[in-house]
Amino acid sequence: MSNYRAPRGTQDLYGKEIEKWQIIEDKARKLCEQYHVKEMRTPIFEHTEVFKRGNDASDVVNKEMYTFEDRGNRSLTLKPEGTAGLIRSYVEHKMYAQGGGLQRYFYIAPNFRYERPQKGRMRIHHQFGVEFLGQASPYVDVEAMMLGLNLLDSIGLNQYKLVINTLGDQTSQDLYKKALRDHFSDHLETMCDDCKRRYDQNPLRMLDCKVDHDHEAMKTAPSNKDSLTDESKAYYAEVIQLIEDLGLDYEEDSRLVRGLDYYHHTVFEVISTDPKAGAQATLFAGGRYNHLVEYFGGPEISAFGFGMGIERLLVYADLAGIELEKDISLDVYGMPLDKDSMRYTFELIQKLRSLGYRADLDHENKSMRAQFKLADRYQAKIVILVGENEVKQKTVTLKNQETQEQITIPEDELVSKLGTWIGEKNE
Amino acid sequence: MSNYRAPRGTQDLYGKEIEKWQIIEDKARKLCEQYHVKEMRTPIFEHTEVFKRGNDASDVVNKEMYTFEDRGNRSLTLKPEGTAGLIRSYVEHKMYAQGGGLQRYFYIAPNFRYERPQKGRMRIHHQFGVEFLGQASPYVDVEAMMLGLNLLDSIGLNQYKLVINTLGDQTSQDLYKKALRDHFSDHLETMCDDCKRRYDQNPLRMLDCKVDHDHEAMKTAPSNKDSLTDESKAYYAEVIQLIEDLGLDYEEDSRLVRGLDYYHHTVFEVISTDPKAGAQATLFAGGRYNHLVEYFGGPEISAFGFGMGIERLLVYADLAGIELEKDISLDVYGMPLDKDSMRYTFELIQKLRSLGYRADLDHENKSMRAQFKLADRYQAKIVILVGENEVKQKTVTLKNQETQEQITIPEDELVSKLGTWIGEKNE
Repeated sequence: MSNYRAPRGTQDLYGKEIEKWQIIEDKARKLCEQYHVKEMRTPIFEHTEVFKRGNDASDVVNKEMYTFEDRGNRSLTLKPEGTAGLIRSYVEHKMYAQGGGLQRYFYIAPNFRYERPQKGRMRIHHQFGVEFLGQASPYVDVEAMMLGLNLLDSIGLNQYKLVINTLGDQTSQDLYKKALRDHFSDHLETMCDDCKRRYDQNPLRMLDCKVDHDHEAMKTAPSNKDSLTDESKAYYAEVIQLIEDLGLDYEEDSRLVRGLDYYHHTVFEVISTDPKAGAQATLFAGGRYNHLVEYFGGPEISAFGFGMGIERLLVYADLAGIELEKDISLDVYGMPLDKDSMRYTFELIQKLRSLGYRADLDHENKSMRAQFKLADRYQAKIVILVGENEVKQKTVTLKNQETQEQITIPEDELVSKLGTWIGEKNE
Repeated sequence: MSNYRAPRGTQDLYGKEIEKWQIIEDKARKLCEQYHVKEMRTPIFEHTEVFKRGNDASDVVNKEMYTFEDRGNRSLTLKPEGTAGLIRSYVEHKMYAQGGGLQRYFYIAPNFRYERPQKGRMRIHHQFGVEFLGQASPYVDVEAMMLGLNLLDSIGLNQYKLVINTLGDQTSQDLYKKALRDHFSDHLETMCDDCKRRYDQNPLRMLDCKVDHDHEAMKTAPSNKDSLTDESKAYYAEVIQLIEDLGLDYEEDSRLVRGLDYYHHTVFEVISTDPKAGAQATLFAGGRYNHLVEYFGGPEISAFGFGMGIERLLVYADLAGIELEKDISLDVYGMPLDKDSMRYTFELIQKLRSLGYRADLDHENKSMRAQFKLADRYQAKIVILVGENEVKQKTVTLKNQETQEQITIPEDELVSKLGTWIGEKNE
């Protein structure tokens, strides 16, 4: 019996809570239409190789992955993040060969990570994300960031700052890695094991280290700015220019390197500046990445993407006291006053539903008092009262719940009267 | 490299295909609003016990389940169907104690079954389903069926028939089981192993047997009509009456027993009558079930539900030649005529997006010819041309793609002109 509960780190959504999700998803979908971004859906599980790419960052992910064998002994993994599956699909279906340059996709999907559940951190969590593929341009970078920021704005989450950095192109990164290795080589003995490993694999990730965060050598580490090629500098300057043109608040942080190895040029995080926000204050984050399309067997194609956790968004919306409430009011509530009026009421309500009205009726022949209570709870605009007389004379008695006006009219005038009172529906 | 493909029996959705899904989901959601049915979402995996309930029908399901252990050695299963998780959630959150009687929920969710993939039968498939809980009434049964039929109608799938039966209440079923055992006892030796097992477990399911379908004893088996209590007969008569009131085509089939043990009273299937439809012609199916709420630890509550496979719906829509196409036209396409016009164009387009217009621009400084080709492909209603003069004079040149009218106006008149040409947006 005790096992008949949702698994730890997962949740059921219903009632007021699911309305918030519907609102956010609707807003995200609408914004994507405005930005000309199309949806892509990929399977909830993939062959494990899609996610296990043998780099340092994905090693971390691997420990938390839901990996299992199917009945044909193939190793499958529930997707831990949204990008890899989308790029796998993009390559498998050769979408890069469609022409037209830039291709933009979004997804809203569950992600799975076996981690200790905490507020806004679930084992099944959900992400809204975008991937803009096929063109490396400051305009594309800024457009993607703007889409995410517009979503925050439309929800009412306006306490944030955009933190931005550039990693430069491959040459810049190679130069910077060399500079970092030169710098850290004298200090490596006093640093943590992760840092030692990353020194060889990817010294950029040493800058992310939580253990050695305050290590002397961290403070004196060179900035990547000094390693940027002219081309990379120009690219970044244009990104900053566009951000300023749009009047956005931003902050540059040369320590921002993002977790993954494949980032190039622009990387960013949007951080909540709500004073009530805790340590996990990232609202969404992303950047430009190369190599991933190639990794899955496609041509060399540059992409820009971000991911935004929906659970976390809701935590911050709650913190900010934002009420995400949907209009769930009924247009019409039908009240049969006795058992013999049920059939007539039912037919009326079915007819109104088929015309596009949100309509319901009492199925149980409750008392009139109980029925009016329900009509209130359902925020019904109009109540239709049906008793013996109405059935006999083929009429309806309508009560406008707002104005309290009550009239009895022939059944065939019902639709036009509703049109006058609460507007026509075109279904 | 060869593993970088979607797993067998799964698919990627994008382009024209995902538009069909969006249309069907939008229609289903809208219909549910009209029927006053709320969404519920439950986790993609549950503790395995939720699905493994040790009855005959779920044994069949068990063989096809994706079951695995998480890192804490708990057995989890990707949900093979939509009902069990929803009822588990309903009980866990004591929703039956909310008052108000009937509660109606819908879900749109992936289901997972490890079976041989074929057309419209995927390892990850998707269901739209409803569960109406808390009241056993012919009105509720017919309302739920109507919701499903309305969805078919709204898609344009109008070649179907409703096949219906009643299993009666528990007493009726006990009587019928006895009648079946009496009938089959003399024939059991010549019947298949499944039938022998079901003879003890649940002889109703013998009637579903594909092996012994033409066995002599099947043809002479008693009808359950003779075992129905008066109350069950009256319930069923009212269901039929309501269906006739609504003018629906239906057909009674006393052999229809549905796969699962927990059904009572009304069971139904909606079958495609499209002559091009093959053997798997069920569009959706369901019925009234008892005991399941109790099974998960709740009170005795009767429920009515159905499930509709979205992949299968799309197969039949294709068969019927129904085109599910979304309006994906752009309101505005911005064309910078040279590199120096990019910034100005970008800002204009960003502004229009923030006002709710669907807007895009060329990010790559393509040739004008290539840009007009893209504007056509994107079905842009208005093209904004921006060149040296426009930037200098803060004007825009608009071309109405439908009327071919072209005008140059000050930038601050852009929004009102768009309002006149293609309507205002209120975002």
